[in-house]
Amino acid sequence: MSENDKRWIVGVDLGGTNIVVGVLPLNGGDGEVLGLQQATTEASKGAKFVVDRIVHMVEDTIAQVCRDHDGSKSDFAGIGIGSPGPLNRSTGTIINTPNLGWRNFPLRDLISNAVGLPAALDNDANCATYGEWWLGAGRSVDNLVGFTLGTGIGGGIVLNGEIFHGASDVAGEMGHMTLDSTGRRCKCGNYGCLEAYASGPAIALRAVEGIEAGAETILPDLVNGRLEDLTAATVYEGVVLGDAYANEVMTETAKFLGTGIANIVNILNPQMVVIAGGVTRAGDHLFVPLRAEVRRRAFKSAQEACSIVPAQLIGTAGVIGAIAMFKKEVLGAV
Amino acid sequence: MSENDKRWIVGVDLGGTNIVVGVLPLNGGDGEVLGLQQATTEASKGAKFVVDRIVHMVEDTIAQVCRDHDGSKSDFAGIGIGSPGPLNRSTGTIINTPNLGWRNFPLRDLISNAVGLPAALDNDANCATYGEWWLGAGRSVDNLVGFTLGTGIGGGIVLNGEIFHGASDVAGEMGHMTLDSTGRRCKCGNYGCLEAYASGPAIALRAVEGIEAGAETILPDLVNGRLEDLTAATVYEGVVLGDAYANEVMTETAKFLGTGIANIVNILNPQMVVIAGGVTRAGDHLFVPLRAEVRRRAFKSAQEACSIVPAQLIGTAGVIGAIAMFKKEVLGAV
Repeated sequence: MSENDKRWIVGVDLGGTNIVVGVLPLNGGDGEVLGLQQATTEASKGAKFVVDRIVHMVEDTIAQVCRDHDGSKSDFAGIGIGSPGPLNRSTGTIINTPNLGWRNFPLRDLISNAVGLPAALDNDANCATYGEWWLGAGRSVDNLVGFTLGTGIGGGIVLNGEIFHGASDVAGEMGHMTLDSTGRRCKCGNYGCLEAYASGPAIALRAVEGIEAGAETILPDLVNGRLEDLTAATVYEGVVLGDAYANEVMTETAKFLGTGIANIVNILNPQMVVIAGGVTRAGDHLFVPLRAEVRRRAFKSAQEACSIVPAQLIGTAGVIGAIAMFKKEVLGAV
Repeated sequence: MSENDKRWIVGVDLGGTNIVVGVLPLNGGDGEVLGLQQATTEASKGAKFVVDRIVHMVEDTIAQVCRDHDGSKSDFAGIGIGSPGPLNRSTGTIINTPNLGWRNFPLRDLISNAVGLPAALDNDANCATYGEWWLGAGRSVDNLVGFTLGTGIGGGIVLNGEIFHGASDVAGEMGHMTLDSTGRRCKCGNYGCLEAYASGPAIALRAVEGIEAGAETILPDLVNGRLEDLTAATVYEGVVLGDAYANEVMTETAKFLGTGIANIVNILNPQMVVIAGGVTRAGDHLFVPLRAEVRRRAFKSAQEACSIVPAQLIGTAGVIGAIAMFKKEVLGAV
């Protein structure tokens, strides 16, 4: 059977907290992921545990899709894997991933050999952005930039329908763009990074600092007074309940994000910026002040050319993008 | 005579202060510009004056090259024009250029029709960066980012040997990246732009502010006490003379530039950053603290992959890049 007869590709989205695995037909179908599997990562149990878990999930999803669609393993072209980086795509190796505790770890080949299918590896945020480009919010554009807001802020750049990787696979680290050169210390060692203001933990930290400084707000009540339990989701909850202080924290978050996006708009002049992550649930509370900040800061002809939109593939962008990435890398075109 | 028989291309580098015009053979030759012409722009005399001056310079350079190399006008493939933007490349129109006072001005066709040769138009900083990629510091790389430091800070992005333009020809406006979200007001209307700290006038302004606040320095003596005459070149002169305060201003400049370049290194992961402009004469006084700042702020695997170097085509990068741009746009490849 030649490559052209293959019907499906497996996608793996490996995160610090969860693993998501699923399958799409080569042409993407209607974007509905088949045989969707989800499990916790449990990185603390070690690399072998995590790899075994991924391999089992891949085999389970293959089995399920074969059962549902009368197929066999030989119908599968291979496996696209999205993982936290930095990583080396050509060797398929994770260079160093603090969240997983891995160093120089040959993730791609371990999975490929165990399953017996070819595999390709790329950064998780690149994959999520590529998924949105292929079957999500960015279906109609050639050039887009993605921000994934979570424990950190990841990013991906798609130019002319390809993930842009740069000289050493680092391109797209928009979360570590300095917005205030003498600002907050970031986990990356730098000061004033976007991530130090607008990641989930950073949003929570800013909220707690204001509360400790005497802000009037219902946020402490939402966590029974345990400020250490306050998260970005708590802030969102406060916004929905009409809390003025929570809204202020959200507006500040929008301004930091808008400043970072304005930089990207001036530098890359993309057709679209796609924002993924829990904080996008805040909807207009986030997007209205965010877009206003971009208008305030970016060149008119650049911001007018750019749509700033929430991601559409909630929970599956990483898997879908890993599949698109495999297709591009191994089969040659998406 | 077919396109393939053409021997030369004319390049025009139009700036707010000067116009530079010259010729290269199609293959670039040894990079030495033939028939080099230079004149002041005198934009205050109006658009017709400037266009007439450019047309005369183009005709003079063509005549000189024909005389020196036994050629005729039919040996010329066309004219590449680099101009301040924003501009529309497809219509060849300057949208709005404050320094020249032009709005919706069809510069490309006016020159093309007057001279009787095809022409192509692009942003001046894009052209300067492309020139460095073709025949200057970036000859050996595929992906590079250029910063041109002068009255403003321009920039250009070359990816896979092509100028990257983005959705509306604005890509590469690195000078208007926010580095301090509540910082200095920039001429573009934004706050805390790189240009508001590290352009020539911004360097001079920071130096004067420190002097007015009582800094001990010889800088006022270098302008006979007339602080309004103090420029970035004065600061450079003070650095050469060993003035500690001038060195402090230069180091601050290097830190702002290094912060902006670190952002670009994290976002685009280029193989090379090329810096052009008078301030690069400061040599190690600029580049040593600048590279240190990039190391302090950017991801290790990204900054290790990136050389940060001064431009090589002093005074001719714009002309050479305009020629390369014409070659790419009209003849199809550089």
